[in-house]
Amino acid sequence: MGTERRPIRLAEDGRAVEIIDQTLLPHRLAWRRLERLADAVEAIAAMRVRGAPLIGATAAYGVALALADDPSDAALDGAIEALAATRPTAVNLRWALEDARARLAPLAGEARVAAAFARAAALCAEDAAINRALGEHAAALIAAAWEAAGRARPVAVLTHCNAGWLATAGWGTALAGVYVAAERGVPVHVWVDETRPRNQGAALTAWELGEAGIAHSVIVDNAGGHLMQHGRVDLCIVGTDRTTATGDVCNKIGTYLKALAARDNGVPFYAAVPSPSIDWTLADGLGAIPIEQRDAAEVTHVRGLAPSGEVVAVRITPEASAAANPAFDVTPARLLSGLITERGVASASAEGLLALFPERRPNAPG
Amino acid sequence: MGTERRPIRLAEDGRAVEIIDQTLLPHRLAWRRLERLADAVEAIAAMRVRGAPLIGATAAYGVALALADDPSDAALDGAIEALAATRPTAVNLRWALEDARARLAPLAGEARVAAAFARAAALCAEDAAINRALGEHAAALIAAAWEAAGRARPVAVLTHCNAGWLATAGWGTALAGVYVAAERGVPVHVWVDETRPRNQGAALTAWELGEAGIAHSVIVDNAGGHLMQHGRVDLCIVGTDRTTATGDVCNKIGTYLKALAARDNGVPFYAAVPSPSIDWTLADGLGAIPIEQRDAAEVTHVRGLAPSGEVVAVRITPEASAAANPAFDVTPARLLSGLITERGVASASAEGLLALFPERRPNAPG
Repeated sequence: MGTERRPIRLAEDGRAVEIIDQTLLPHRLAWRRLERLADAVEAIAAMRVRGAPLIGATAAYGVALALADDPSDAALDGAIEALAATRPTAVNLRWALEDARARLAPLAGEARVAAAFARAAALCAEDAAINRALGEHAAALIAAAWEAAGRARPVAVLTHCNAGWLATAGWGTALAGVYVAAERGVPVHVWVDETRPRNQGAALTAWELGEAGIAHSVIVDNAGGHLMQHGRVDLCIVGTDRTTATGDVCNKIGTYLKALAARDNGVPFYAAVPSPSIDWTLADGLGAIPIEQRDAAEVTHVRGLAPSGEVVAVRITPEASAAANPAFDVTPARLLSGLITERGVASASAEGLLALFPERRPNAPG
Repeated sequence: MGTERRPIRLAEDGRAVEIIDQTLLPHRLAWRRLERLADAVEAIAAMRVRGAPLIGATAAYGVALALADDPSDAALDGAIEALAATRPTAVNLRWALEDARARLAPLAGEARVAAAFARAAALCAEDAAINRALGEHAAALIAAAWEAAGRARPVAVLTHCNAGWLATAGWGTALAGVYVAAERGVPVHVWVDETRPRNQGAALTAWELGEAGIAHSVIVDNAGGHLMQHGRVDLCIVGTDRTTATGDVCNKIGTYLKALAARDNGVPFYAAVPSPSIDWTLADGLGAIPIEQRDAAEVTHVRGLAPSGEVVAVRITPEASAAANPAFDVTPARLLSGLITERGVASASAEGLLALFPERRPNAPG
């Protein structure tokens, strides 16, 4: 692993993609080889890769793997359809697939295959660059909090789920600012929401921060409000799976509750929003973003490392009890202090986003 | 078990107390015999019994067990001290011990022992009666919600942690209204917050409701806000470990977050407050109620039933990651729609409580 800090890469033979299998973390770090479209579909659906930007990157590679087997138009359409069906909420997936279709449809044969691989690699490089730029803006907020506290103590950042480098092609989104701040010598302590049901905070964010040597404490998802009531959180930074053009943020279930607590206690609450996760077609997050309903077993069972050394799923509920499992919620723009993008911090509003992305104005020049 | 529905009872031989060992639920229902003071202290500290009213009842029996061994003044003082040190937050524990001291100090020898056992039994009976009365008032709120919905669908009640009969000497507090409503034919569906870190919702509330044949779905603690945003919760009812004279409610960690979501979505949010859980000496819940900090292992590990059939604790975090574990939070009175007591529903304020408990007015007659 070392300092590479990216969860997806082209295999050395150039014929496959390798991903970190995130279902095995934090107990085991293992790369998994994806050779065909079906492998990429399975990796996204089983959440071996997750995080909106990384889902998009994996999908781009999935298209390339499909075309390497069969570069026909039918294969291109089929790959896009199969990949689009894996996860409904993250917009990056749809965006990456539309981008692939637009670029690859005019090509054929070997040229189409080569372009697909090249585009997937470029998408990863773009994602990492966007996140690094976003991280600079987020780090400035963290550094300002340190100054405001007279440099007397580490800045306490609360985050939910995992929006670190494991969720992207590099750097992460919500954690990018933490990494950049740490590079610059700003001391940070991260409160890591465990993020039930899949515990991406406990498993992935805690692991990433530990690898990077950044101080952190895992807390249950119930604890953040109490910590904010007692002045123990300086700012919250979360990721996003889809942000509307009006600044509503759809992110991992439970994000909304933390935003409410931040508002109630005067704690700044930011979403880290790389522009590919903005859905410029939507104005109403609560009404318009499809919320994935996942398997009840994620609620009724918890995976972890047993005393035997095996990773097992233990049941925590009575056998007869039902469970419901909505995977995301929407934090309305009114609860957000700002959206941290690669171009700076926007107010969470249509005007705020358009001020940074003027090319998205309806009447903007081409 | 059958229809008894109480988690504590005097042993048939009259020389010990029996409790349901709640650390084994929902996977196994087993009674445990407490013969000496040390057994009662251990049962409370290890949370084999938990829930503010049941902690108080167990403490009263613990005093009796101590005096059966040694009815001296020193033994009475020692028992009260040992029991008071087990859990800092629930006020019932302190109240039950002060009550025991006041009643038993004037007595000696066999009379003291007999009075201690009798008082513990009476406290249990009083608790069950208070909770039943409280349940009548709560059931009226649930029935009103059913009428308001045109009897078209079950009333959706969200609860956090376990404040059912397992948490008391009978009926429960937050769940008492659900049980009474069900008796009267009002259809109820309960959203059960799993309630990390100890999962009392997933393990105990779900088990209780299943035993009673009441429809319910377990959800992660992150999900309630989303459900409220989408109109899927009619009212929230939670328990309390300590309520200030001004109506602030200290309850299981995460309660505050649900109260914020309820306020943001216009969902009524009630605490079920039997009067012994009111601390009439306190006016400021956030500043004055001690919040128990429990073992980090409750956060880093989750107990459940493994595929092998054993109950094991699995680790969900990296070995090197720290964890913090505050066990309770305070929901300010301003977020509560009302406090459901055995005398009716009070507004969450000093005046609201004093209107129902006028004998607590500073200048009230004796």
